[in-house]
Amino acid sequence: MSLDRMLTLAGQVNDLLNASSVLSWDARTMMPHGGSATRAKQMATLTVAARDLLCSDEMKRALDGAAGEVQGRADDDPEARMVSQVREAIDYHERIPSELLRRKTELSGIGHDSWAEAREKADFSIFAPALKDIVAVSREMAEAIGYEDHPYDALMYRFEPGTTTKELIPLFARLREGMQPLVDRIAQAEQPRADFITREYPADTQMAFALKMAERVGYDLHRGRLDTTVHPFEISFTRNDVRITTRVNPRYMPMSLFGALHEAGHAMYEQGADPAYVRTPLATDLVGLYAVSGVSFGAHESQSRLWENHVGRSRAFWRNHFGDLQAAYPGTLDDVDAEEFYRAINRSRPSLIRVESDELTYDFHIMLRVEIERRMIDGSLDVDDLPEAWNAEMKRSLGIDVPDDAQGVLQDVHWSSGQIGTFCNYTIGNVMAAQLFETATSEQPGIRDALEAADYGPLKDWLDEHVCRHGRRFTRDELLERATGRALDPEPYLRHLNAKYSEIYGLAA
Amino acid sequence: MSLDRMLTLAGQVNDLLNASSVLSWDARTMMPHGGSATRAKQMATLTVAARDLLCSDEMKRALDGAAGEVQGRADDDPEARMVSQVREAIDYHERIPSELLRRKTELSGIGHDSWAEAREKADFSIFAPALKDIVAVSREMAEAIGYEDHPYDALMYRFEPGTTTKELIPLFARLREGMQPLVDRIAQAEQPRADFITREYPADTQMAFALKMAERVGYDLHRGRLDTTVHPFEISFTRNDVRITTRVNPRYMPMSLFGALHEAGHAMYEQGADPAYVRTPLATDLVGLYAVSGVSFGAHESQSRLWENHVGRSRAFWRNHFGDLQAAYPGTLDDVDAEEFYRAINRSRPSLIRVESDELTYDFHIMLRVEIERRMIDGSLDVDDLPEAWNAEMKRSLGIDVPDDAQGVLQDVHWSSGQIGTFCNYTIGNVMAAQLFETATSEQPGIRDALEAADYGPLKDWLDEHVCRHGRRFTRDELLERATGRALDPEPYLRHLNAKYSEIYGLAA
Repeated sequence: MSLDRMLTLAGQVNDLLNASSVLSWDARTMMPHGGSATRAKQMATLTVAARDLLCSDEMKRALDGAAGEVQGRADDDPEARMVSQVREAIDYHERIPSELLRRKTELSGIGHDSWAEAREKADFSIFAPALKDIVAVSREMAEAIGYEDHPYDALMYRFEPGTTTKELIPLFARLREGMQPLVDRIAQAEQPRADFITREYPADTQMAFALKMAERVGYDLHRGRLDTTVHPFEISFTRNDVRITTRVNPRYMPMSLFGALHEAGHAMYEQGADPAYVRTPLATDLVGLYAVSGVSFGAHESQSRLWENHVGRSRAFWRNHFGDLQAAYPGTLDDVDAEEFYRAINRSRPSLIRVESDELTYDFHIMLRVEIERRMIDGSLDVDDLPEAWNAEMKRSLGIDVPDDAQGVLQDVHWSSGQIGTFCNYTIGNVMAAQLFETATSEQPGIRDALEAADYGPLKDWLDEHVCRHGRRFTRDELLERATGRALDPEPYLRHLNAKYSEIYGLAA
Repeated sequence: MSLDRMLTLAGQVNDLLNASSVLSWDARTMMPHGGSATRAKQMATLTVAARDLLCSDEMKRALDGAAGEVQGRADDDPEARMVSQVREAIDYHERIPSELLRRKTELSGIGHDSWAEAREKADFSIFAPALKDIVAVSREMAEAIGYEDHPYDALMYRFEPGTTTKELIPLFARLREGMQPLVDRIAQAEQPRADFITREYPADTQMAFALKMAERVGYDLHRGRLDTTVHPFEISFTRNDVRITTRVNPRYMPMSLFGALHEAGHAMYEQGADPAYVRTPLATDLVGLYAVSGVSFGAHESQSRLWENHVGRSRAFWRNHFGDLQAAYPGTLDDVDAEEFYRAINRSRPSLIRVESDELTYDFHIMLRVEIERRMIDGSLDVDDLPEAWNAEMKRSLGIDVPDDAQGVLQDVHWSSGQIGTFCNYTIGNVMAAQLFETATSEQPGIRDALEAADYGPLKDWLDEHVCRHGRRFTRDELLERATGRALDPEPYLRHLNAKYSEIYGLAA
């Protein structure tokens, strides 16, 4: 009875957050320019209404009753988990004083303007004062939220619950150790041919082909749609409506295609959630106030990277679908074969910009950011010294000279909007993707045979069974333990990168 | 201070209702089919949250304080009006027992299925039991809401506040008296040529031309957009984002064009509201729980019908724009001139279906429905006798034999969803449109000169000044009194129809 009441209220929280997501999707895809003046207020009202309902006396009463009703159930019983997650979220939100939340929100608005100006003028000093305030408020937030070892852990909690700096330091060290030699050796090797990647590919055809491939690997269009945006994203309004976007450059075709496969991977995570969890806390991030079934941003990224890289950038995929690609662009790829295409889309070259970097060098961009964030938060790196630290690390790891701050420390929007603590998700996602893919294909060799035959069903079934259907029932680490028998492990990822790039670049093992 | 608080809360109510409107727009234009399973719940949560916030103790405290703060202000002071409208809306909602509201909502869901089946099988008896329940619940609602003379007045209040059956009976009698002779004489007259209306008009070109014309008369695309739907509509999310849709039949071009002009008229009402009223009660229908600036459904219809009929179907408009139309469809209209086109789009022929009827016969469809509703609600017409009453009136007024219930009493969706009391808006809109247009053009003869010269600015300015900018500050009748010096008056409408149709059909005056 109390549990029912708690779930009714949690369903309303989920509705409010999903509504906010619809408004967000609309603002990024459909909204006329003039709408921005009031849209932000509408979204803020929905989020605050969701938070207030979550932390209402009525919810607390229902929660207390529900806790009694699920007492004695197994720890991983779905309803017991719903109860504990509602309690955890209320505790989280009540630790943050509303005055602090208000200051943080206001700073986010201010930060964006000075960041935009700084980036335009390629002058970090314009953004530095705002960033100092943002770092100071983030520290206050960390103290309010609480942590065991490091204040940065409190900030990562909202995005990647349970992840600590203590865990990231050895993980990153091992990744560097395994990846740096590959990067260094590729720098000396001959690059594969890739001239055909930048030919003329009509935008409409790119969108149609990207959607066809997304549907081909398992994205359910009955519960989805694809649109064009400057920054690709996936967003869901329950598992029944999960949308993706991609971006199109008529002179660089891989962008739309792999953007769509990446976002389709995210979308299949949401579409694969247990229908019984719809509108429940197991389909709602009550801490982050975001209606999502995926259990962490890293876990989400594991699904997008798995479908983008382990499937979409595989040799088998292009052996099967290069003919489709040639047929989609008549005459454009007559002088190219599947093997050449496979190598071209897997070229690795150190680059300045994170969002344009390749599978192998991407994590260096991430590790750089995470470490800079961590040191800003614990005070061991002064904001004024940030460009120097950034540029030195880019030189050391990727051998690149950063020409100016716009192409360096000012390239990402995250900090300007007050977001500190989210970058680790990308690398955790890469590591998880390889770990899950390796387990799936070794546990069930039929999955690899099916992929060779362009049958994506068995892989999708395995992921649905071991990851997607659980929604937020298990933590990321529980999910990994249950699926692969162990916690986050960088070795499958390093094995994957080593095997793939050694072969493409003809490096001796 | 209390007023500020009241406005903050009312702003949140407005945000929640605007969010619900975004979800509604999305559901009708963009949502994948699977999304419908959870979308209705999300919208219901937003509406209930808005109602609960409106009727919350916090709002009532703020309202009481605010009432003191605006005491002594002029009766039509905008803030005084905000206070009185919040009070009136709370009173309205608290009169309806939540148990009754729940029963009405449930019935609406049930009614739709039996109506759809009945319509498919052209058998009213399938829908009759559900309609009896809907009528019974509507009567209960009317008793709860309260009325002076007739229970139907209580139901119309949500759509057309202040309108009473006592006022509609003489209005309809006068309209019939004025319009019936025209209909009868046109039945004997020769019809203008119209073969070219049903030629092949590519859908894309229709959409582009409809949007161009909507923008041409004053629809601001910076705060708007046009999409395609089965049933055209206008919807706004504050005056900053006001969207329209139209429908396209490649073999019947006027549908998309006049649909767009009609909806653009609605949209210009919302876009023209005073920016100071954004997110206030003067831009929120707190009784109907709908974020809209227009003061009644009839007032809204006056703007859509004015731009559609008095401008878009005028001879001046096509003298100015027929060349644009010919250019948009090269070769299609070479054998037609502006005068022939003007006459073709103004043909009047009695027809079975309301939404397909012309300017002159449309109101007969409306008056029929209003009178049937009124008699169902006061019990003087039994639901079982409805088809007979419908068919007899169609024969009497328009000379039409109704072949079956699907093309008769079952054609509209309104009753099946529990909506009784909204049809009068259409005829009130037609009457108001003519009254406003006649006043505007006689007060400022320059408006007509400008229209002759394809300059829509002066007319739009007059309407903005006398209607749109006021939002919900004045009642519909106050608005009419201020703009035209008198209450709702059918004579300008009858003068308009007489002059127009006598001329087109060569009828002696």
